[in-house]
Amino acid sequence: MLEIEIDDARYWKNCVDSIVNLIDEGNFEITANGISLKAMDPSQIAMVCFSIPKSSFGKYKVDETTKVGINFDSMSKVLSRSRGKDRLRMMIEENKLVLEFIGEDKRNFKLPLIEVQEGVQKEPKIEFDAVVKIKAGQFKEILGDAALLSSHVVLDANSKGFFVEVHGDSGDLRVEKEKTGEATLNIEVKRDSRATFPLQFLGDMVKACPDDESLSLHLKTNSPIKAEYSIGEAKLVYYLAPRIETM
Amino acid sequence: MLEIEIDDARYWKNCVDSIVNLIDEGNFEITANGISLKAMDPSQIAMVCFSIPKSSFGKYKVDETTKVGINFDSMSKVLSRSRGKDRLRMMIEENKLVLEFIGEDKRNFKLPLIEVQEGVQKEPKIEFDAVVKIKAGQFKEILGDAALLSSHVVLDANSKGFFVEVHGDSGDLRVEKEKTGEATLNIEVKRDSRATFPLQFLGDMVKACPDDESLSLHLKTNSPIKAEYSIGEAKLVYYLAPRIETM
Amino acid sequence: MLEIEIDDARYWKNCVDSIVNLIDEGNFEITANGISLKAMDPSQIAMVCFSIPKSSFGKYKVDETTKVGINFDSMSKVLSRSRGKDRLRMMIEENKLVLEFIGEDKRNFKLPLIEVQEGVQKEPKIEFDAVVKIKAGQFKEILGDAALLSSHVVLDANSKGFFVEVHGDSGDLRVEKEKTGEATLNIEVKRDSRATFPLQFLGDMVKACPDDESLSLHLKTNSPIKAEYSIGEAKLVYYLAPRIETM
Repeated sequence: MLEIEIDDARYWKNCVDSIVNLIDEGNFEITANGISLKAMDPSQIAMVCFSIPKSSFGKYKVDETTKVGINFDSMSKVLSRSRGKDRLRMMIEENKLVLEFIGEDKRNFKLPLIEVQEGVQKEPKIEFDAVVKIKAGQFKEILGDAALLSSHVVLDANSKGFFVEVHGDSGDLRVEKEKTGEATLNIEVKRDSRATFPLQFLGDMVKACPDDESLSLHLKTNSPIKAEYSIGEAKLVYYLAPRIETM
Repeated sequence: MLEIEIDDARYWKNCVDSIVNLIDEGNFEITANGISLKAMDPSQIAMVCFSIPKSSFGKYKVDETTKVGINFDSMSKVLSRSRGKDRLRMMIEENKLVLEFIGEDKRNFKLPLIEVQEGVQKEPKIEFDAVVKIKAGQFKEILGDAALLSSHVVLDANSKGFFVEVHGDSGDLRVEKEKTGEATLNIEVKRDSRATFPLQFLGDMVKACPDDESLSLHLKTNSPIKAEYSIGEAKLVYYLAPRIETM
Repeated sequence: MLEIEIDDARYWKNCVDSIVNLIDEGNFEITANGISLKAMDPSQIAMVCFSIPKSSFGKYKVDETTKVGINFDSMSKVLSRSRGKDRLRMMIEENKLVLEFIGEDKRNFKLPLIEVQEGVQKEPKIEFDAVVKIKAGQFKEILGDAALLSSHVVLDANSKGFFVEVHGDSGDLRVEKEKTGEATLNIEVKRDSRATFPLQFLGDMVKACPDDESLSLHLKTNSPIKAEYSIGEAKLVYYLAPRIETM
């Protein structure tokens, strides 16, 4: 028995988009307490960890822990068909996931469950040396600047502030977010931290984060970045491997 | 002598768009009483019947019945150049159709008349078993849902209501419009009616219908659908052949 | 020593766009009095002459006349990243042009200076026979109409008014702007003037002109057209060669 209702179908779409931007397929683990997912992107350099508690749902009947293999691309497309004040009901029926929009009329999408192979996904344990809290919209703007010039970006947090550098054939960029006590920016640095990341992945990781939401970037020199944000009660944690320059 | 004036050039664009969505070329029959057109789409599975009375026009001087072969694609593009409060004057000059916009300046487009071959177009005579009246916008939304999953759609009108079903490789959809006395929905059923239609054609048929306008769908099991709507005084009737499943 | 500041980065973007629509690369000549550029488009049928006085800039420190070779495409893309109330500072550092946006944060783009070969560019000396002053928006609309039918357009100024003609395979167009004393239109004709121009180039020349701005078109039969407009204090003059029909 599995029956889950969400009052605002669009909220659930935002949650799913935070996953689909990085991976096409994955397994939701649905327990009595909530829904979660841990998955690597196909190229194995990024990881997404999603979790949402049962309290986010108007109705949440889950008798036993269930793994549900989802094509997130299909699910996101279906959810994009939600209208104004649609409620959303999710059920499992005959090896299909039912997505029922309840609004002016009743619309019942059924998506086949799929088998998704995955190894045991463990979050990397890293002692980060710096944490930068920044409005997601500001960080997206910086990534937009960077995209003009290169496919990679250097993130650098040190005692003076948070710096983004880009070096490309057609030019260079340096963005300086100085420690000014700006309310929307918080920089804590134990040790100077600097690493280079692929721009596309950084963009995919933060795309679903509302612009006004605070984004936490955890950094350590030449180590993976951990990016965290919330969508309502849903919690997103991403890891992304750095590019290590070989000389 | 042929001289026709329309106070609102954009209204005439809407009329022409209701035709061009289905056919590229056709003959307007212009008589003392109005303008009409009957034409099959190139693949011969859909028919459009358009008619507009002379009363829709600010000026209507037509001495004799004239067949005017039009490339509707060109005509629609020209009409899309109308601005704010342009009036439109149409004349025939030296085997060309003159489309003159009269507004801030005078703009005079001339399109060559073309020869369009067509057999005698007769509207099919079908005794339909069900009529569904629905707001065009609602029906377009349903077609948008359906397009996620398949190129065909099942329309089903029975004593319980109006149902749309889609079955595709990536999932299924069922939309239920129950007979609830909703003001914008009227379902009359003499006999249960169910047939499958190509989605693209249904979409092309209703695309030019304003979202708030009422659309009439006439159904009969495994028979063509007749779709009717009005754009002001202009009347549009479409027929579309069903897909008959062969086993 | 070169340091130039513009209070509104977007204004400078408009200036650069008036150049980049026609040429990809060119040399800014930066003197103590202001910045100017004269360049032919790669196909050598159009010329752009740009000039802006030092008074347009919040800060303008230029010790000696400098030629600065710019990839305008890169510069325009960087400028498109300006935000709300960004100020812009331009400097030369180690053979690079620095574009520094100063707003919420400090963003520092560096573009490599390039070597642009160019002959001596002299503005053609033509005694024009007619001048048409028209709102840029109106002229752009006419070019939009023309683009439906052909890649060339005839501009014709005579004692009756200003006329635009287009002749194409799929139809013809004639636009009449009669001398009516319309405030936004001024036509001065010493001798009837008529010439044919490539539509794409005309469009590129006027694209950056604000729609409400007055545009001056200088004409002479079968001679180049001179188009002039202002963006604030910046002055744009373009020349475009006519197409001479060979019989």
